[in-house]
Amino acid sequence: MDMVNVTSDLLNRVREQAPLIHNITNYVVMNSSANILLALGASPVMAHCLTEVEEMAGIAGALVLNIGTLQEDWVESMICAGKAANRKGIPVILDPVGAGATTLRTDAVRKILDDVKISILRGNASEVLSLISEDVQTKGVDSSVDLTTSVLESAKRLAVDRDCIVAISGAEDLVTDGHRSFWVSNGHPLMTRVTGLGCGLSAVVGAFTAVADGKILKATAAAFGFYGLCGELAFRESQRPGSFSVAFVDTLYAAGAGQIEELLRIRKGE
Amino acid sequence: MDMVNVTSDLLNRVREQAPLIHNITNYVVMNSSANILLALGASPVMAHCLTEVEEMAGIAGALVLNIGTLQEDWVESMICAGKAANRKGIPVILDPVGAGATTLRTDAVRKILDDVKISILRGNASEVLSLISEDVQTKGVDSSVDLTTSVLESAKRLAVDRDCIVAISGAEDLVTDGHRSFWVSNGHPLMTRVTGLGCGLSAVVGAFTAVADGKILKATAAAFGFYGLCGELAFRESQRPGSFSVAFVDTLYAAGAGQIEELLRIRKGE
Amino acid sequence: MDMVNVTSDLLNRVREQAPLIHNITNYVVMNSSANILLALGASPVMAHCLTEVEEMAGIAGALVLNIGTLQEDWVESMICAGKAANRKGIPVILDPVGAGATTLRTDAVRKILDDVKISILRGNASEVLSLISEDVQTKGVDSSVDLTTSVLESAKRLAVDRDCIVAISGAEDLVTDGHRSFWVSNGHPLMTRVTGLGCGLSAVVGAFTAVADGKILKATAAAFGFYGLCGELAFRESQRPGSFSVAFVDTLYAAGAGQIEELLRIRKGE
Repeated sequence: MDMVNVTSDLLNRVREQAPLIHNITNYVVMNSSANILLALGASPVMAHCLTEVEEMAGIAGALVLNIGTLQEDWVESMICAGKAANRKGIPVILDPVGAGATTLRTDAVRKILDDVKISILRGNASEVLSLISEDVQTKGVDSSVDLTTSVLESAKRLAVDRDCIVAISGAEDLVTDGHRSFWVSNGHPLMTRVTGLGCGLSAVVGAFTAVADGKILKATAAAFGFYGLCGELAFRESQRPGSFSVAFVDTLYAAGAGQIEELLRIRKGE
Repeated sequence: MDMVNVTSDLLNRVREQAPLIHNITNYVVMNSSANILLALGASPVMAHCLTEVEEMAGIAGALVLNIGTLQEDWVESMICAGKAANRKGIPVILDPVGAGATTLRTDAVRKILDDVKISILRGNASEVLSLISEDVQTKGVDSSVDLTTSVLESAKRLAVDRDCIVAISGAEDLVTDGHRSFWVSNGHPLMTRVTGLGCGLSAVVGAFTAVADGKILKATAAAFGFYGLCGELAFRESQRPGSFSVAFVDTLYAAGAGQIEELLRIRKGE
Repeated sequence: MDMVNVTSDLLNRVREQAPLIHNITNYVVMNSSANILLALGASPVMAHCLTEVEEMAGIAGALVLNIGTLQEDWVESMICAGKAANRKGIPVILDPVGAGATTLRTDAVRKILDDVKISILRGNASEVLSLISEDVQTKGVDSSVDLTTSVLESAKRLAVDRDCIVAISGAEDLVTDGHRSFWVSNGHPLMTRVTGLGCGLSAVVGAFTAVADGKILKATAAAFGFYGLCGELAFRESQRPGSFSVAFVDTLYAAGAGQIEELLRIRKGE
């Protein structure tokens, strides 16, 4: 099945099954990620207390971990939830927000990667690279690095080392398991002027992979493509970030097979 | 006074008095609940620290407790604030978000109900039922149960047992004190595709009951009716969740006696 | 340089330099403050954990402290970040949300003012006055006091005592270092019906002062003026709070020298 059909099929499944997506995410985006998942057709829940995360992950279809606005005790909850998700065999997405900006965040990502089998690591280039090299400095939560050939090689190596999919957002997005890669060229620069759209993509990767019957590499690329083309469609409605973000949520709800066929741009890499 | 006049009258009082509504609520909806209360004409404050909740409840017109994104130490703050509100004699609304999904949440609601005199318990059917039967499993924060006759009987019994109003949101909403009941058929399904609109209703119940001179059963039904008809009016403006939620806030601000007369659908139950 | 040119110049610098603004702020406004800063052209980061705030402040252009939804342990983080910002010599803005409403908040502001060199204290009249007189009672997070002559004198005295700029939002805004003052009459009343717009202004003061080469009195007045005129422009787009707040973010992104020249109203006080 080509990626247009894969993407339409997964979107339909999300809308039919409304998978429960358990998010342990940062305060900034809890509201926006919930609205993004609801508009898409999934069922979001936010729960971070150590006492309940195992139980919540146990009824979920995917788990999304996000280290923005991190506190140390949340890392313990993320690991507990992650282990429960691993036992259940559901996808676990890790968004390393701000890794490379502070030691707390870089160390937290490494610890989570050590203790939990992460399915997909999704971030920007400097967040992901900071996990490999100590020379990379993230500017707060914004990338300081472009997606060059050397970044590509580092990402593939990281994917093999950690046995996970590495998905890097940029002007063109890279989704790789170290052996097979997809490049996604959907998206719009105005998306970087709305807070939480990167985090929202991690949540949407959760929703697509939750219904993918284990085919999570293609499902991750499909999520990137659909999310990005919704950004392009929203830009047709508004060229300013406030109304653009409203139009983006509307588009996640309304776009379907027709828009996917018209706009999806995913190509296989070597 | 019939419910159309009750509702218009309470709305006017909220707008004239701008009651201070003290919310101890979850991270996901703090922003949206504040905006909903401000649009309505009330004055919201969010404060959860054990050191200040007694003082804050002491200057408020109503207290709204909401257990989404729960942490254990917040339960203590909720109980402390609830006792202060009870001493002052102001309405206390409890929203059992996710009760029935995890033990932490179900237990927290029971503990709060034991320690605080709750005026109104407002949730969806499976959240409320989980407080009676251990067989009910909530899907994250979404209901897994419809409002059937047996649910009605359970709700009435719970209201009598706990000496509180039980208010259940659904396709048709039930507001009962166990002896008298109202059914409210305002609202629109798209409201379930915007996060926090249930929590926002609990906050609005706080605002309406804060100005109701103790007549909180009718005030709760009026809040449900007005809130639901604002959803219907918003759907006339937009059929997609992003712009719908913007229109909904606009409508809470702009709707008045004319819209209430045209659209309010509240009937007495047996 | 007159204030029209100062304001246009600083706005351009924010858009060219995209200064990193480190916010330790309340849960209600984390999302809206981030979106306001992104729309303006700055780069926001939210980070409150004691373990990372020193490092984060060390790569930032300004630090914004905000005591809404306060917890006691956050005060320690604010002081730690504030000291790091002082060492680096970047502006530190303090927003005393709800000071005068509870002892926790009033005491926290005093403690932060004692331990950190604050550059700009920005709040409403009753929040600021509560730091001087114990007779002032804030209504939750809304002002209970107007900006009268006696308030002006108190604000000037506070500015001298604390060696900081005191900036008070009201029908007309006051920005004073105790010796020189500016009055800003931009803004629109509907801004008070959207949560977090005061907190967002504190963040924007952070962005303007981050690029001001130390001329922070004028930069604070410029931030107030530009922010207020964006409110006026947004009101031309919508007269209801939901869509008004969307239009406001759009305007922060789109407004420039032309609008500043047309609408800015800043005058020197005695």
